[in-house]
Amino acid sequence: MDILSKIKQPIEAEMVRLNEVIAQMLASESPLLTRVVEHYLSTKGKQIRPILVLLAARLLGDVRLETIYGATAIELLHNATLIHDDVVDESKQRRGEATLNALWDNRVAVLAGDYFVSSATRAALYTREIKIMGILGDLGQSLSQGEIDQISVAQDIIIDEKAYFNVIRQKTASLFVACMQIGALTAGATEAQQQALMNFGEKLGLCFQIKDDIFDYFTADEVGKPTTGSDIAEGKITLPLIYALTHGEGSECDAMRELVRKSELSSEDINRLTDYAKRVGGIDYAEGVMQRLRDEAVACLSPFMPSEAAGALLAVLDYTIKRTK
Amino acid sequence: MDILSKIKQPIEAEMVRLNEVIAQMLASESPLLTRVVEHYLSTKGKQIRPILVLLAARLLGDVRLETIYGATAIELLHNATLIHDDVVDESKQRRGEATLNALWDNRVAVLAGDYFVSSATRAALYTREIKIMGILGDLGQSLSQGEIDQISVAQDIIIDEKAYFNVIRQKTASLFVACMQIGALTAGATEAQQQALMNFGEKLGLCFQIKDDIFDYFTADEVGKPTTGSDIAEGKITLPLIYALTHGEGSECDAMRELVRKSELSSEDINRLTDYAKRVGGIDYAEGVMQRLRDEAVACLSPFMPSEAAGALLAVLDYTIKRTK
Repeated sequence: MDILSKIKQPIEAEMVRLNEVIAQMLASESPLLTRVVEHYLSTKGKQIRPILVLLAARLLGDVRLETIYGATAIELLHNATLIHDDVVDESKQRRGEATLNALWDNRVAVLAGDYFVSSATRAALYTREIKIMGILGDLGQSLSQGEIDQISVAQDIIIDEKAYFNVIRQKTASLFVACMQIGALTAGATEAQQQALMNFGEKLGLCFQIKDDIFDYFTADEVGKPTTGSDIAEGKITLPLIYALTHGEGSECDAMRELVRKSELSSEDINRLTDYAKRVGGIDYAEGVMQRLRDEAVACLSPFMPSEAAGALLAVLDYTIKRTK
Repeated sequence: MDILSKIKQPIEAEMVRLNEVIAQMLASESPLLTRVVEHYLSTKGKQIRPILVLLAARLLGDVRLETIYGATAIELLHNATLIHDDVVDESKQRRGEATLNALWDNRVAVLAGDYFVSSATRAALYTREIKIMGILGDLGQSLSQGEIDQISVAQDIIIDEKAYFNVIRQKTASLFVACMQIGALTAGATEAQQQALMNFGEKLGLCFQIKDDIFDYFTADEVGKPTTGSDIAEGKITLPLIYALTHGEGSECDAMRELVRKSELSSEDINRLTDYAKRVGGIDYAEGVMQRLRDEAVACLSPFMPSEAAGALLAVLDYTIKRTK
């Protein structure tokens, strides 16, 4: 059995129900919007985030319909931000398919993203937990603020590990924390259970983003991503290069610190920077950070071990760290 | 006293509190986002929508803090859609000031709009009325769907009064209905009072959009708008031209019906169409529709007459119909 099947095994029936509810929340009488939604439904990704909501609830007992609505809200909000990110980054492809801005245009994509956000709000209502509405509002603020900070960090070129962790906590980990919290809340978790699961979510989310950022240091053949160094080209300095530029020594490091601030980087410049990050041990360092986070995340789950759902959550963690794309 | 001062007179103290709450909901620690928010706070418009929320509540008694949070939610959601509309339409100016996409870029504007939406969700939470969260979710869906429909109508060039009213009901009137409903709900209105105020809101909202659409048939000197016929250029056929194309006769009307379907309209084509709409009586017709809606709207307020707040709501109605920009 592959790892994704193992992850989904404790919540197989719930995943079917989830996708029915998602389709129901997005249904409209608008012909163009219906085509947009059908495209989305046919290309939906691995749905890691709603899986986390469902698994968090499963840890504590049976999965109620409220949890499925909570998982729907999270998945719709997440996809709204992806749709808008593709506009922001002018991306033409996602999950091997054309993006909405590529298939239609930016106008349709901006409005479709807005439609997904309000559909998420409606789904959250069905959880009948006002606290979940609050989580969604905070999360929406956090995600957009995280992306805006990243633009502003990119304008300033900040090479600072703490600033990097603040950005990825806000733009990625916050969503994973919310997944675990919504799963816990809708399943009637105690305060302590909720906190343990949220801590797990934060550590998992940080690993997820660090791993994503590592991919950017390798070529398409190596990891199946379109380009190497596209983050650096956009002025986003991620953990491996931050490590190299702050722990490297001598004149080469000085030269690299100067190079990274150039206003337009050529592909040769980018290759020099990614090579340097690797040579000084930036990738090893980032992988070490993930291992430490993994151990901490495992400890968060100890009150729930052993159980099938806890095993599945550990499998999500290992999948996140070991995945090759 | 000018008409806007008269409108705000019954809610003067509440308007001050409203703007404090808006600033508070948008506050963040992000430097770029703070600059964006400061720009918005310095150029906020006439705030007709939150005024409606506050006046609807005032009709029924004292304005509670919950109403002010409801008005904040509406104003933030409305401004989120304006920010995204400016991206969608590539507008460089609004309210005589540079738009966010012009001052920064589309990326910042898309994300800032998302930040405003989630700030609206947070404000709505403080109303402690789960029904208001539902109104906000429905409204968000309705607004984005209305805009998407308009793109799709523009692709098809539909000359149909019923389709026109469906679009403007969804993209404009729905927001005015929500204003009145939120004001009523937070002030403890009866079901009948709530319905009467929502009906008022719908008629007011339809007038608002018809009036906006009429401006597009006149030159900058006449109404202080940048261009004539920009709706037609985008393929949006509004009420005056719909009337002319469906009630005109003979070969000239046939020629106009053919012209409007041309894929690229020159400014001469647009002038011919706007002139034709005027000659056949399209503007008079649209003004007649507004008058009829006005009378119906006045009737909705009769249970609340006479009162200062009802007088102010009538002043909003007359302002909407008579305004010159």
